[in-house]
Amino acid sequence: MDKVDPLAKLASFQETWTPKIIAELNGQQVKVAHMEGPYIWHSHAEEDELFYLLSGKLDMELRDRTVELSPGELLVVPRGVEHRPVAHGPAQCLMFEPATTRNTGELESDRTIEPGDLERI
Amino acid sequence: MDKVDPLAKLASFQETWTPKIIAELNGQQVKVAHMEGPYIWHSHAEEDELFYLLSGKLDMELRDRTVELSPGELLVVPRGVEHRPVAHGPAQCLMFEPATTRNTGELESDRTIEPGDLERI
Repeated sequence: MDKVDPLAKLASFQETWTPKIIAELNGQQVKVAHMEGPYIWHSHAEEDELFYLLSGKLDMELRDRTVELSPGELLVVPRGVEHRPVAHGPAQCLMFEPATTRNTGELESDRTIEPGDLERI
Repeated sequence: MDKVDPLAKLASFQETWTPKIIAELNGQQVKVAHMEGPYIWHSHAEEDELFYLLSGKLDMELRDRTVELSPGELLVVPRGVEHRPVAHGPAQCLMFEPATTRNTGELESDRTIEPGDLERI
């Protein structure tokens, strides 16, 4: 039960698109990730996902439009909604989502990390 | 499904210790609140509570110690743990917690707002 500094946690690793768990509560997890360039289209069948941008510029592409996030803004992507994060340059993001959330959702990819295998930092 | 700017939401009201709901996901809510001075000792029997400080200085007093939060830092207060937030000057905080969370926890107070009566902004 110590305080957590998400930016300090982000400074401790460099890999992009590799969420790390920094806090847990009520079956949910708080994760941080470095993002750069385009991710992959995916959706989560059972999980709503919150993105809170800490630095950089992040476009959340949806099938019908794009939501542009600046630092300090957040977006909830509801379950079942296909989305593709695209970071223009390096970006740092905090996510709130259920502990069951897989990083590539329903998609099998070489980027897939099973929820139980995510690192806690 | 629009983006949300927590600081802009906070700029739209002034009452202290009156959480407003700015996003909902997975049975959880994201709230923002202005804080100033000492709140009251309370705990939540069933809910873990996350505090993410956006501006100001916030001491989270626990019965055995105090955790001092600066902007950009977060703290999870587990269910059942008595706590008292004390803001030194005006502070702005984001909270992430289950939709069932009552602002004064198990305590009945003139500050109590039932979860269903919280304003969405």
